[in-house]
Amino acid sequence: MQTRAASTHTAASYDEAEIRRQVEEWGEALRAKDRDKLTSFYTSDFMAFDLAPPLVHGLDDTKTGLEQWFATWKGPIGFEVRNLRVTCDGEVGFTTSLNHLTGTRTSGDVTDVWVRATVCFRKVAGAWKVVHEHVSVPFYMDGSYRAAVDLKP
Amino acid sequence: MQTRAASTHTAASYDEAEIRRQVEEWGEALRAKDRDKLTSFYTSDFMAFDLAPPLVHGLDDTKTGLEQWFATWKGPIGFEVRNLRVTCDGEVGFTTSLNHLTGTRTSGDVTDVWVRATVCFRKVAGAWKVVHEHVSVPFYMDGSYRAAVDLKP
Repeated sequence: MQTRAASTHTAASYDEAEIRRQVEEWGEALRAKDRDKLTSFYTSDFMAFDLAPPLVHGLDDTKTGLEQWFATWKGPIGFEVRNLRVTCDGEVGFTTSLNHLTGTRTSGDVTDVWVRATVCFRKVAGAWKVVHEHVSVPFYMDGSYRAAVDLKP
Repeated sequence: MQTRAASTHTAASYDEAEIRRQVEEWGEALRAKDRDKLTSFYTSDFMAFDLAPPLVHGLDDTKTGLEQWFATWKGPIGFEVRNLRVTCDGEVGFTTSLNHLTGTRTSGDVTDVWVRATVCFRKVAGAWKVVHEHVSVPFYMDGSYRAAVDLKP
């Protein structure tokens, strides 16, 4: 089992490095608004708990949603992954991180938001694949029910 | 690797059954507002992405938060876990589910909300423990930024 970078050349440290590499590549695809590259990390039974309704998104739904979401950004998307923790063993793993999304929307609005991300992996035919993503912000418990899009880590 | 209940007596099916049993027990502790029982499932480095700010909660923070949150409910809390999926292998596992919270608050308000839950496990000294929970609702993308507490599965 592996929860941080190790200097020994164990199977676990190889797997952790491979998952970290995928998170990095996934981020590059997001910045470039490359939907096909982005969804190539997902299994066919991929399931997301995402920022936007409904409660649950399947793979097709995610592809359509990404297409529409990318169209709302002017130019590339600013994307930074902070506090990435990787835990994996055998054929199952997960990561946690705080992700920073920044940029200008086609509406002219500026986006600058930190979201929490939990990403779950399974090894399929020897390769790590993403089976589940959970991305969210909390909401204020002051009766406003307003999404807390202004929090900083 | 195990993603659903199996009838064979493999190590994976034993581990899946054990994780399902823990989710059931955790739910019983939540209904009973038993904070010590609830937090006995967590590791000392437990980390949560929860419904309420801030972005990240540690174990101590979670204990204090539960205490305050339990005090806002009149009588026991209604709690149902739906669509529970368990994935585990070796010493790492995770679950996804939609959880239904119902009941009356001390304010007189009635709560009836579905939340998305991703729970991540690690085997510590032979026993499954919860290292991470991510619980959220999405929010409306209509400019209101309102938390979607009225969605049904």
